[in-house]
Amino acid sequence: MIIDCHGHYTTASPQHDAWRKSQLAAFREGRPSPEYPAISDDEIRESIEQNQLRLLRERGADMTIFSPRASAMAHHEGDERVSIEWARACNDLIARVVGLFPETFIGVCQLPQSPGAELKASVAELERCVQMGFVGCNLNPDPSGGWWTSPPLTDRYWYPVYEKMTELDVPAMVHVSASCNPVFHATGAHYINADTTAFMQFIQGDLFADFPDLRLVIPHGGGAVPYHWGRYRGLADMLSKPPLSEHVMKNVFFDTCVYHQPGIDLLFRVIEAGHVLFGSEMVGAVRGIDPETGHYFDDTKRYVDAAALTDAERVQVYSANARRVYPRLDQALRERGQ
Amino acid sequence: MIIDCHGHYTTASPQHDAWRKSQLAAFREGRPSPEYPAISDDEIRESIEQNQLRLLRERGADMTIFSPRASAMAHHEGDERVSIEWARACNDLIARVVGLFPETFIGVCQLPQSPGAELKASVAELERCVQMGFVGCNLNPDPSGGWWTSPPLTDRYWYPVYEKMTELDVPAMVHVSASCNPVFHATGAHYINADTTAFMQFIQGDLFADFPDLRLVIPHGGGAVPYHWGRYRGLADMLSKPPLSEHVMKNVFFDTCVYHQPGIDLLFRVIEAGHVLFGSEMVGAVRGIDPETGHYFDDTKRYVDAAALTDAERVQVYSANARRVYPRLDQALRERGQ
Repeated sequence: MIIDCHGHYTTASPQHDAWRKSQLAAFREGRPSPEYPAISDDEIRESIEQNQLRLLRERGADMTIFSPRASAMAHHEGDERVSIEWARACNDLIARVVGLFPETFIGVCQLPQSPGAELKASVAELERCVQMGFVGCNLNPDPSGGWWTSPPLTDRYWYPVYEKMTELDVPAMVHVSASCNPVFHATGAHYINADTTAFMQFIQGDLFADFPDLRLVIPHGGGAVPYHWGRYRGLADMLSKPPLSEHVMKNVFFDTCVYHQPGIDLLFRVIEAGHVLFGSEMVGAVRGIDPETGHYFDDTKRYVDAAALTDAERVQVYSANARRVYPRLDQALRERGQ
Repeated sequence: MIIDCHGHYTTASPQHDAWRKSQLAAFREGRPSPEYPAISDDEIRESIEQNQLRLLRERGADMTIFSPRASAMAHHEGDERVSIEWARACNDLIARVVGLFPETFIGVCQLPQSPGAELKASVAELERCVQMGFVGCNLNPDPSGGWWTSPPLTDRYWYPVYEKMTELDVPAMVHVSASCNPVFHATGAHYINADTTAFMQFIQGDLFADFPDLRLVIPHGGGAVPYHWGRYRGLADMLSKPPLSEHVMKNVFFDTCVYHQPGIDLLFRVIEAGHVLFGSEMVGAVRGIDPETGHYFDDTKRYVDAAALTDAERVQVYSANARRVYPRLDQALRERGQ
């Protein structure tokens, strides 16, 4: 079984995006939000069958842990009320996808974060979504969208979410959204920077002493971290922290959203297979075909298949790690005999 | 001959740092800056002989392209006048080091940037330093120190510096300074993020059409870029840009400040040796000994020696590329028959 831990609903019906636009326009003009539009099951089915489901089958994976489009979370837009409405709309749409394709998709939710706002609404939305069958959440370390005004992820500001995650036994993927700072290209700089930044915060802090069962997935292959693994081992040492294997890597996992073979090979050379979850972020940041290989850049299964892994390690990366990090996914699979 | 393209004077006499403190205190209190202290040649000699020079010899390199301590540039402190004074003091100290050890060190200058300030003073300081024999400059893409308030490096805001660099035929290393944003650890996040960010800006823009002879060194192995080389090739394609080899890599170079063998191996697997300059950033960000190897993390010469390079490629990385990117260094070496 092959589980892709990182997929976003980037192909939702145009009405969904149009509603967001009108919601933000209403906010700016001080009007109440418009009513959410009717989207038929057939429209949802089509948007999935022609995209994620087709590619999943072509590439030979079985399941995707599926969440709302990351770049559209845009927590910096509107205010907390606007974020609450938008997160509910996005998560409800994910729930419908999962309802239509229960064997292929399982939900991860967007949180209604807002710059400077407390995380009560995020805790409530996480709880609501888990009751609907979701197995995790995406946590945005920078709801300001590139201005980085929130405290580090090790700050007590974030603890209410970590407490609820621990109680519900669900992990978070640390995932920023769009950048409204012109220096940061969203998928080319902001995403990767956020991954690197989060990892370094975990080295500096001592978050996992307070939350020994917390599990966080750092996407995009861990940002710059595996490439600079020596730097991070050395910085942990300079900061008088325990080795990374003890201090951070009991709780942190990387995905395989690294879009070329040498990068994936490096990832597995420095990070134990037990800490890497298969992911592609398909259909996502990089949609083209690599002229050097003739295959999609984001067809990461090809790279993982070609990596120097034992059969047992490949099972870890393709499914066992995901089932361990997302125990509610494991439970759902067991309940249907998988 | 082995040239380290990336060394900072991180071991300057305590009086130098004490003066900076009193300069900033005077600024805050509205007093004129104190007089710069006397530092003897012997003090400078000692600070270099016991540190950079000793390690350079132990590790078997011959020369270092030497600039003021990057983390202490702190362009966000004080105002432009304060930055002008501080840059002059730092660069004059580098000139003294070079004067005392002309065979081993050659200067690269700090620029008197200041958030929001025009770059006239930077242009003037660059010119002053080149007249003193400096061969390049460090350009800070984020003088705000982690708040990222300046425009992208492709913006016309930066053009006065690029014009002067072109006129003087000197390159810049893109190098941020300290972070005063608590989310970004300086050497663990801000440095690496800045490298990644700059590269993505060069993909988005078309800077090298305007400055075909401009040469920029992105340090720390290019941040996350080589690890995510497929992502960047794919994003260039999605943005309808020419291949990276045409669009960016005629003008951009990476150093080897990557502190473990797998990282260096990845670097040379994806980036042609003609675009990589040997560098260690010694004595710098990561000062300890790697328990896995028994050698200093930042002894990058060991990794380069062990990398799968031809003899010709190793000559490129160790000296020929540096002489090409820093033609004034080449000229100085030729003048003494090297």
